[in-house]
Formats: sequence, C-alpha cells, structure tokens
Amino acid sequence: MKAIGVEPGGSGPRVLDVPRPEPSAGEALVRTLRVGVDGTDHEVIGGGHGGPPPGEELLVLGHEAVGVVEEAPDTGFEPGDLVAPTVRRPPPAGQNEYFRRGEPEMAPPEATVERGIDGAHGFMSEYFTSPAASLVAVPDGLARWGFLVEPVSVAEKALELARASRSSFDWQPETALVLGNGSLGLLAVAMLAGEFDVSCLDRKDRPHPAIDIVERLGGAYLDARETPVAAVPDHHEPADLVFEATGHAKHAFESIEALAPNGVAALLGVPGPWRFEVDGGRLHQRLVLSNRALVGSVNSGPRHFRRAVDRIESFPDWFLESYVSRVVDVDSFPAAFETNDQMIKTAVEFDTP
Amino acid sequence: MKAIGVEPGGSGPRVLDVPRPEPSAGEALVRTLRVGVDGTDHEVIGGGHGGPPPGEELLVLGHEAVGVVEEAPDTGFEPGDLVAPTVRRPPPAGQNEYFRRGEPEMAPPEATVERGIDGAHGFMSEYFTSPAASLVAVPDGLARWGFLVEPVSVAEKALELARASRSSFDWQPETALVLGNGSLGLLAVAMLAGEFDVSCLDRKDRPHPAIDIVERLGGAYLDARETPVAAVPDHHEPADLVFEATGHAKHAFESIEALAPNGVAALLGVPGPWRFEVDGGRLHQRLVLSNRALVGSVNSGPRHFRRAVDRIESFPDWFLESYVSRVVDVDSFPAAFETNDQMIKTAVEFDTP
Repeated sequence: MKAIGVEPGGSGPRVLDVPRPEPSAGEALVRTLRVGVDGTDHEVIGGGHGGPPPGEELLVLGHEAVGVVEEAPDTGFEPGDLVAPTVRRPPPAGQNEYFRRGEPEMAPPEATVERGIDGAHGFMSEYFTSPAASLVAVPDGLARWGFLVEPVSVAEKALELARASRSSFDWQPETALVLGNGSLGLLAVAMLAGEFDVSCLDRKDRPHPAIDIVERLGGAYLDARETPVAAVPDHHEPADLVFEATGHAKHAFESIEALAPNGVAALLGVPGPWRFEVDGGRLHQRLVLSNRALVGSVNSGPRHFRRAVDRIESFPDWFLESYVSRVVDVDSFPAAFETNDQMIKTAVEFDTP
Repeated sequence: MKAIGVEPGGSGPRVLDVPRPEPSAGEALVRTLRVGVDGTDHEVIGGGHGGPPPGEELLVLGHEAVGVVEEAPDTGFEPGDLVAPTVRRPPPAGQNEYFRRGEPEMAPPEATVERGIDGAHGFMSEYFTSPAASLVAVPDGLARWGFLVEPVSVAEKALELARASRSSFDWQPETALVLGNGSLGLLAVAMLAGEFDVSCLDRKDRPHPAIDIVERLGGAYLDARETPVAAVPDHHEPADLVFEATGHAKHAFESIEALAPNGVAALLGVPGPWRFEVDGGRLHQRLVLSNRALVGSVNSGPRHFRRAVDRIESFPDWFLESYVSRVVDVDSFPAAFETNDQMIKTAVEFDTP
C-alpha cells in the first residue's frame, strides 16, 4: 500500500510502498480517508522534532487522521464505523502509569511515543492499525472533517487545564486572546468565539483568509506590529484567557502582561532554546498580586477527542469550508506540504469520504 | 489606647495613643491578644509596599492577629470568643464583585484595601473593630498561636490554587520543594510535611534554628549555594509541587526547571522590578511538553482561615514553640521588629492569651 514517509532532515516527504498492516488482538484495521498536515509535521520533516521508530531511517508521517473501520473483531467497533485515532502509544519499554490511568496525554516525553511524530509510524497510509481503545468514534456527518478532531482535541485539553487552574474560585471569564491565527490559533478562535469576547493577534497583512475567518467568527484581529502582546490591555482589553498558539517564546512571558487579574494563559507552542531578557521581577510580581497563572499543555486524550467531535459539530459549515485550504490526493501529496502564507490547513486524501 | 504605627519610609514603628474604636452595626469590638510580624510589615515600614489610609500620614501596623470578642451584638459571636480577622476590606469606592462573592482574596490590588498593609489601619492596637463576616473563630486552645492563622491561610490558598490547577487529571504528587525557610517557607514545610516528601532550599549556614525545624519536620534542607533551584532534580529529586516563598524573582523561572512532569509551582513572593536574562525558549518548551504550570497567589479568604485553624491544630507543639522566636509586650515592641538572621517569627503581645 502507499504511505507518505520522510527521512527527517532529508529531502522531504515521498510515497513509499509498504506492507498493509495486520491488526493484532484488540486492534482495528482502519482504511484511511484524510490526514491533516500541521506545523509539527513540518518540524518532523525538517528534523527539528521527533523521528522514526528505533532502528529505522524513515517515519511514516501523519497524526491527524480520520478513517473507516475495515475489521475490528471483539473491539466494540463494526466495519464501516468512522474513527479518529489518538496519537500517543506506550514506549518500547512498555506500559506505564500514564497509559494505565488512561491519560497518555500527561505522560512526559520519555514515557510515550507519538504516531507520525516521534518513535512510531503515523497514519499517512492507505490503512493503519490501532488498538480500539485509542480510536474515538466520529459521526458519519464528519467524514470530511474528522481529521480535525485531533487538533481540536489539543485545544480542548489546553482549555480544560486552563479552566481547572481557575476552578477553586468563582472565575467569570469574558475575554480571550488567541496568540497566532495559524491553523491551531484559528481552531481556538472558533472554539472560544461562542463563549468569549475573543481577539486574535498575529502579524499577517490584509487581505488574508485567516483574518477574514477571525472577523467572520466575531473576533477582533490585532496586528502584533501595532499592538504588541503586552500592550493588548491598553490598546484593546485585558484577557481573562490567553491561548498561545505561536511557539514564539517571548509570548509565554508577555502573555502575563496581557492577562486580566485572575487570568490564565494556556501555552501550546513548542519553541527551541532562546535566551532573552525579561523584567522577571515585574512578571513574578504580576503573577502573584493578581493571582495569574501560566499553564503548559501538550497532546490530548480520548476524552478530549470526544469533546472535539462535539465541538466540530457545532462549527458552522462556512468555517470548515474556509478553514481547510486544500485537500489533495496521495499522488499530489507535495501540495499538502507546500508552505504558503495564504494557506491555513491542508490534508492528504487517501480515499473519498 | 496604645497602637503601633509607622510613617512608611520614616523613622520606624512607634507607640501611638489613639482612640478606642467604636463598632458599627454588624461589627465586633475585639480585644487584641497577639499580632505577628512578617516580611510585609518590614516592606511597609521601609516604604516599599502599601501605605496609610488616604489623607493620613501614619498607618497602624499589623495584619496577623488573634483577639477576644468584647462585644458583638447580633453578629453570631459572643463576648469571650477567640477570633482571627481576615485582612482585606472593600476599598473607599465601596463594595465590588469580589467582596460580594465572598472572595476578597481574588480582588485585584486596586479593588481592595488591606488592613495594616495598604490603605487601612491594622490590628496592632489594644482593640480593633471588624465586620463579623471578616472574623474567623479560633478554638480556645489556640489563643497563643492564633496570630499564625493569617500566614498559614495564605499558604493554604496557594496550595488550593496549585491543586486546582492539576485537578483535571489524576495528579499523584509525592514531592514538594519549598523555596525559602523564612517564616512563610517554614509554615509551608510544616503544612506539606505530612503529605509530601518535602525539601526546603535556602542559603543559611548551619547551625540555624530554621534548618533544625526543617529537619525535625522530616524535610531535607538544600543549600542554594551548593544546589541551585534548577539543579534540584539532579542533586536531589524533581518536585511535583514547588512552593516559592522568597520573593526572589529568578526563582519564579528556575522553579520550572525544578518541577517534575505535570508539576506546579505556586508563587507567593512579591519582588520589585528586576531585569535579567532567561532561556525563555527552553522554559516555554518545558512548560508545554511536560504540562507544567506556574500559579501566582496572594492573600486568603475566610475559608482559608478556617482551613488554617485546622492545620495549626495538627502542628506538633514543639513546632509552634520553636517556630515563634520571640513574643514581646507593647512596651518592648522594637524587639519584634529587629531583623536578626537567627529569628524566625516574632509577635507583639497586647494582652495575655
């Protein structure tokens, strides 16, 4: 069968011919429909993050998938069921407490592998197998958009952690600031727009489809070149919730200044090392005197996938249609990996949804 | 009656002769027994934090008090009841949402005054008045130690926020690192020692009573000159919970390195501005990839006072006896404000408990 693999840091993704996998007991064989591409894929391709399974040179890409169960005996799934797979699996050393608790998303990096990212092959192939416990049911109506369940679930988990951090008092948030209107930031805007007065900060020039989407969702677009993160409270309004989706490390610190009293910033980006100066005394003081918090979040688990399914069902059709810039079939796969400032979200289609 | 007041930044505390206050409806008149002194008092005395009520030059000090109700008609309190007062009161502008919700501890700085600290007279006087709703009952057995209810309550609130931030998953913390074994740090060690494998970092030389207390509580003392905060995981063990009680701004950032995966650092210190360089990329990445959190916390409310009463009742007698270094009567009050490296906690006694 066809798969899209990469030698990290090498010459880019290519189509491989690999054997169709055989499901073990408790596993399902899934026929792949669509697999999304995101920033993590680009980091893996560039060699900056993750890598192939131990002893292998190539990694099959893809961690945002939707597919149809082909066979799944004794698993609770039936052939024809639409499913999205979670990403984390136990590491070569075997099960550990995080997987036993059903919370692989809380495993530290060394206690997990991530399919399509780090240490395990992904879902960019005509078929994949997965333990049934790592598959989440997707309604038939979401066949085209089910590859968005994974990225939305990542945002759901970050929101869950942020809310939990404010759960010991009567938090009444009204305003949210999303840093970045890339593919993850826009999902966060769509997710938060129903409940928050939401704004989204980036440094894109108009006209841009991502700015149009923010505004059509009812959000305010803030240009970081005119309104730096720390100036958002003065230029616009303080944020009860900041949702960082840029990986720009200064944002993690500047978000403390953007917060309203008792606010929380959820951090999702993954920057590399970068030394810079901060007014650490002022930031520390502001965290304390106004009960502010910073919460890091990575990955997501089955309950976040289920919540993401509900969330996507609540998104308007126009949003999904505008958000997904390009879906290409396997033979045209390079177009899904092109980086182009006007592109928001791309996917590779293995079979017609 | 006698009161201990100060002109912030002036020549230090002195005894004033002020009128005995008259309780309004809903208020209690309280005869003061003991009032503790902490780092905040020293900041107020030095002029670095807080100040007198609007239009006044002197501030009556004291925010850690225990006393006996003298009169409190129609309040639920009876003459003879032992009480500890909370610190925050509505600002001159009047009630606001935080006070209406019963969560003054979540008010931002501009939405509250703090008795004995900022904008309202404190409890260092022979009598004080307080709305009954801002008094918490203290059992008779705690007459000598009731002035510790306020500082313990501040630690309880920080612990509550820290736990809440980890409440969306199955957090199973085992290790705690307290930064600073000053008066607040030692209370945190005593509070955490029953549940956590606790260590406490400072830069004091042995022999020192604070180090002795840490070790007698079963904690490990770490010398910051040998084990910097960021090296604690390598030299000792990673901390599921960091409790920062130093106000040293670099600790807020270094604590991210000291944390175990899924750990949280509660920040309580209040530093002034201080610019320094951090590896912000690395810190941001570590927050995200291991689901770490930083939670600032200030002040405390009635429920934290009630929890603090229970907590102090659980402390061994030897701890309370060793922790309180010196209690002096009003006429010897300067001895309670002496700063001396061997001193842990001091209080002024207005009447015999």
